[in-house]
Amino acid sequence: MHIHEFQEMMKQLYFHRDSKRGVKGTYEWLGDEFGELGKALKVSDKEATEKEFADVIAWLASLANITGIDLERAAIRKYNGKCPKCKQSPCQCTF
Amino acid sequence: MHIHEFQEMMKQLYFHRDSKRGVKGTYEWLGDEFGELGKALKVSDKEATEKEFADVIAWLASLANITGIDLERAAIRKYNGKCPKCKQSPCQCTF
Repeated sequence: MHIHEFQEMMKQLYFHRDSKRGVKGTYEWLGDEFGELGKALKVSDKEATEKEFADVIAWLASLANITGIDLERAAIRKYNGKCPKCKQSPCQCTF
Repeated sequence: MHIHEFQEMMKQLYFHRDSKRGVKGTYEWLGDEFGELGKALKVSDKEATEKEFADVIAWLASLANITGIDLERAAIRKYNGKCPKCKQSPCQCTF
């Protein structure tokens, strides 16, 4: 599934709720999901980890929807097959 | 671009660095990017916001790579066109 398609699916499912909640509330919710991903990683629960990864990308797409950002376009603009800093693939940055 | 393709591109670019840094360090870096996204949203800088969205999905893909999670599979398993809680589209959850 394209990143854009996933974002559109999130819009279809949740935009009516996301737009009411607003940017600040949705960002905070994404933060909660990020925290839950950290907990699942700590206990090495692969099933739970997979679900938390799904939630993080889902809330990231929701946040992108209410801020008018096309996540796929944003991703490809910055990461177009080369590291945006050193312009190499694989990345050769030395820091 | 498919979510899976983007994750593969991140692997090609950064896996040699990500795998050395490890899960904890990569999760922390993702947290930093999440914070930067919050700052860009606060000042309503669309260009910066787009770049920060790109960084968050990039680091999420990097974290998925070193934990052996297929981000696209995870996303589709949980969000397959219906809300995973109420099973409706659009979501009809009342909480």
